[in-house]
Amino acid sequence: MKLYTADGIPNPRIVDIAMYEKDLNLERVIVDFLEGENRASSFLVKNPAGQIPVLELDDGTIISEVTAIIEYFEEVCPDPFLVGTIAKERAEARMWARRVDLAVMEPMSMAFKYGIGKNYFEKRITVYPEAAESMKNKAQDGLVWLDNVLAGKQFLCGDRMTYGDIMLYCYTDYFKKTGQKVESGLVHLTHVLDSIAERPSVQKTA
Amino acid sequence: MKLYTADGIPNPRIVDIAMYEKDLNLERVIVDFLEGENRASSFLVKNPAGQIPVLELDDGTIISEVTAIIEYFEEVCPDPFLVGTIAKERAEARMWARRVDLAVMEPMSMAFKYGIGKNYFEKRITVYPEAAESMKNKAQDGLVWLDNVLAGKQFLCGDRMTYGDIMLYCYTDYFKKTGQKVESGLVHLTHVLDSIAERPSVQKTA
Repeated sequence: MKLYTADGIPNPRIVDIAMYEKDLNLERVIVDFLEGENRASSFLVKNPAGQIPVLELDDGTIISEVTAIIEYFEEVCPDPFLVGTIAKERAEARMWARRVDLAVMEPMSMAFKYGIGKNYFEKRITVYPEAAESMKNKAQDGLVWLDNVLAGKQFLCGDRMTYGDIMLYCYTDYFKKTGQKVESGLVHLTHVLDSIAERPSVQKTA
Repeated sequence: MKLYTADGIPNPRIVDIAMYEKDLNLERVIVDFLEGENRASSFLVKNPAGQIPVLELDDGTIISEVTAIIEYFEEVCPDPFLVGTIAKERAEARMWARRVDLAVMEPMSMAFKYGIGKNYFEKRITVYPEAAESMKNKAQDGLVWLDNVLAGKQFLCGDRMTYGDIMLYCYTDYFKKTGQKVESGLVHLTHVLDSIAERPSVQKTA
């Protein structure tokens, strides 16, 4: 397996952390996203969405999208789990991952691409600057909601750390540098994020 | 298992179709979403996101989010598959499902809730009317992109129908009534949607 990826941006980091958690020893091929290598036709053959990370299996099969890549890691290396060990635990992890994805990751990402990242992204994708502020506020709504549901819990799935926690950490950690921070009053959320920050897998990607 | 759901709206329909495809005989408990029953405190205990459908397992475990529910169906009833029969096929299905989710479903849904559905939704969630038109255009970008990648394919995963196809069908079928249609020039996409429309599972939910 080979991972087309980059350092310093959130989606590749999510998959890197999953890889380190599972002690998978993958070849990492660094893609020069600043130069738009991921939007070049040679890369679009691998991933028509033009995004990294992309996992290439030994038979040439291409898997993109962070959730699909982590689920694939889990299939080939179930221990330690990032999804779950029985069906209902896996279902709970997938439920939380999708909530994080839609309530936080996607609006944060749009707020950045359409807002302060506009000059960079408008050469690569269609941007909608008039939606930037709304998406920023929507992501903040998502963080407040998550803070509420995290009361009394160690992670999104209670005492089990799953991939939704890693997704949440990588996005909030990256986008705080772009004017989208986790407000200090969100104590339950901050507690979860702080405990994720201490993991060796996370520190290896810092 | 018990399914809290409703007729006539897209997310519940996605799960209903999956249920019929797999011939699962679940108790369906109809939630009066027009009256806001899904936002009442008794329902929020089940799903703090206040949305339907919700799957309640016999031991009381609650699973929400369409992708998590369908993956759970697949775990308890793998045949016929809606995800896949081997790891790399499941990965491919999950990749396409997330692409449909982020590129089409979520922006279509926001365009509706913040746009022509605003008067209904503003009593239930925070709405961002200034983002409605952008999200409508973004969903259309997603449909054009999908049309391109569907050229020469029967379904998103080639000749295998997976849950991303059902998600795509239910959203485009519902939101065409709200001013978000699939343009007739998108012939590859239309071909896929037409073949989904003919399935008995889909007709049962029409």
